[in-house]
Amino acid sequence: MPVNLTAPAADSLLPVAGIKLGFAEAHIRKANRKDVLVITLAEGSHVAGVFTLNQFCAAPVVLCKTHLASGQPIRALLVNTGNANAGTGDDGIQRATLTCEALAAALDLQTAQVLPFSTGVILEPLPADKVIAGLSAAIDNLKEDNWLNAAEAIMTTDIVAKGSSRRLLLGGKVITITGISKGSGMIHPNMATMLGFIATDAVISQAALDSIIEHAVNRSFNCITVDGDTSTNDSLILMASQQAANAEITEASPDFISLRDAITELAIELAQAIVRDGEGATKFMTVTVESGRDQAECRKVAYAIAHSPLVKTAFFASDPNLGRILAAIGYAGVEQLDVNALKLYLGDVLVAENGGRAVSYHEEQGAAVMQAAEILVRVDLARGQASSTVWTCDFSYDYVKINADYRS
Amino acid sequence: MPVNLTAPAADSLLPVAGIKLGFAEAHIRKANRKDVLVITLAEGSHVAGVFTLNQFCAAPVVLCKTHLASGQPIRALLVNTGNANAGTGDDGIQRATLTCEALAAALDLQTAQVLPFSTGVILEPLPADKVIAGLSAAIDNLKEDNWLNAAEAIMTTDIVAKGSSRRLLLGGKVITITGISKGSGMIHPNMATMLGFIATDAVISQAALDSIIEHAVNRSFNCITVDGDTSTNDSLILMASQQAANAEITEASPDFISLRDAITELAIELAQAIVRDGEGATKFMTVTVESGRDQAECRKVAYAIAHSPLVKTAFFASDPNLGRILAAIGYAGVEQLDVNALKLYLGDVLVAENGGRAVSYHEEQGAAVMQAAEILVRVDLARGQASSTVWTCDFSYDYVKINADYRS
Repeated sequence: MPVNLTAPAADSLLPVAGIKLGFAEAHIRKANRKDVLVITLAEGSHVAGVFTLNQFCAAPVVLCKTHLASGQPIRALLVNTGNANAGTGDDGIQRATLTCEALAAALDLQTAQVLPFSTGVILEPLPADKVIAGLSAAIDNLKEDNWLNAAEAIMTTDIVAKGSSRRLLLGGKVITITGISKGSGMIHPNMATMLGFIATDAVISQAALDSIIEHAVNRSFNCITVDGDTSTNDSLILMASQQAANAEITEASPDFISLRDAITELAIELAQAIVRDGEGATKFMTVTVESGRDQAECRKVAYAIAHSPLVKTAFFASDPNLGRILAAIGYAGVEQLDVNALKLYLGDVLVAENGGRAVSYHEEQGAAVMQAAEILVRVDLARGQASSTVWTCDFSYDYVKINADYRS
Repeated sequence: MPVNLTAPAADSLLPVAGIKLGFAEAHIRKANRKDVLVITLAEGSHVAGVFTLNQFCAAPVVLCKTHLASGQPIRALLVNTGNANAGTGDDGIQRATLTCEALAAALDLQTAQVLPFSTGVILEPLPADKVIAGLSAAIDNLKEDNWLNAAEAIMTTDIVAKGSSRRLLLGGKVITITGISKGSGMIHPNMATMLGFIATDAVISQAALDSIIEHAVNRSFNCITVDGDTSTNDSLILMASQQAANAEITEASPDFISLRDAITELAIELAQAIVRDGEGATKFMTVTVESGRDQAECRKVAYAIAHSPLVKTAFFASDPNLGRILAAIGYAGVEQLDVNALKLYLGDVLVAENGGRAVSYHEEQGAAVMQAAEILVRVDLARGQASSTVWTCDFSYDYVKINADYRS
């Protein structure tokens, strides 16, 4: 069951002026579920995207990069679930292109003005005809107040729909930000991929938008792990419809930081939601590594802990098995680490120092912290000023069950 | 259940002249089990060792390195199970030193002539008094024909004792090699550690012995993974008692390669036995990556596949879920990988090429390969001459069960 996560109320997801959403049930893999989503953007909108670094990236990721690089203004997004169109070679590119062409024709756009996204089973040909057949229904129900339906339309094995909104006042104008995400592993068992779509009505320069997405993703979607696997399809899109009548925000604007931080906060909430809905998750863990020489070494240690199957099964068992955490710190690959200087905390409890268990520590303290559904692991490397935080979940029987299930 | 692995027959483990082994039941953690092992080496023996790279390495690992560096000839090894003496700080060093001192006194040696090894629970103080109390019994039953008892004495949660022997003729003299190992994860749940002890009666120079252990470990114990975690205590020792009356083998000797390869072969068998007895293992997987630019990139790809929880659960389920393997190849971090050029095979079956599923491939072929208890995954990177092989096991419900069990 998801850890402290419920679906958002429909009216909590605020419309973003200039951004319309429409869905269809296109029977791509299963009947009676929303599996096609169309998002349209008002003329003049700016769009920024970040994508998986997996070299086996999916056809839609290849096309997204090409279309964004073409310089033509992006006016529509097309998402399908049920099929990832990944590991499909040139044929996959052709099929994704067909779907973009069909949506472009229906909306009177150029093909390069459409960004495609797919999530679902890998290595199967995309049923482009089904996607295309679903477009008219999706276009018919395009409206601004449709975010919850959109969040549901991008779910695959997600248990809970994920979305959130923020409002802030910039230069006397109300700015709205709404986002949705899906995913419960960096790779899903077969239903692959993390997707995130965030929209704002703010007037903002392309350069400022590019800067914000990079800032936000490095503090949110790039700080989560369920199983350490990186999907072929991961994509995050940030859209700005330029409708809010605020003075244009550039990187030099006083309001830039406010907008950047609000979007980052929303991205963190959406990213954490993916971990809370992680496959088989029963615990939500925050791993913070402090006082490192640089952020890179803090991330190394945080990910070594967050990826360790031994640490994750110990959290599932509510077992304060500190040796496993110390061992993960020890093999994280930090140069010249002084194991006698570092400190390890579970919640507020000091559990290890001087190269071993803290004298003040009693196992009941650790056990009490481990009982909670949300647990903080904190490492003080005692060698610098940098820090890094990673969020992950535990490793349960259900993780194996979900991932060992055959793909039928 | 271990995959195609049974305990060796007692008479299959051949005595090595000059190497005696004795055990005791010292009640270190549990009653009625062999938990102390003493190995003595004839005067003039040469010893080489390789140890974990984990920076949180255990006290006995620190002492082993110090004693080996002291230049005093090593004459005895002291192994205990039930306690890893890891994460124990300065106090752990002192306790390990006490046990070395006691064995040295009993055998009329210097302390630095004893190498200590511990495996078991981490972060608990070593009960040095119990280890010391067990020494006289172990010394009393020291004998050359005691390898199976020794293999049993170093087991923790291993299901099967692990050992093997080889004989070869070098320069008209019969040379014997016998080795034992223990471990079922790079870290055990709480019972930590991989240990390996290999002995030969060959007359061989120290430099040649050092060269052989490095060659052997890089092709055996450094090519296995169960869960990707690196133990605090991993140790491999190669002993040469110099009793076989052969002409001294140096790196320039014609027989050097023969001995090196025989020892390497034995080390591979012992290392594979650890994977076959991996926690919850039901399948034994060989991952071979060929035609890479260098061995390092082949290892990266092989380990990305072998470490992926998604790949390992698919093997548990006998599900030829190729997308997971391709995704792991894609995120392994190989620069400028041409995903359209590489080929993926399951056993002899070509399953992926041209960036996707091979046209000739039918899922029944993959499913047939996956049914076997031993499975070969082969990747042809199509960009060079290097290759690398890694052995691993699948990821089952029992892996979670074993590791989520509380330490009691």
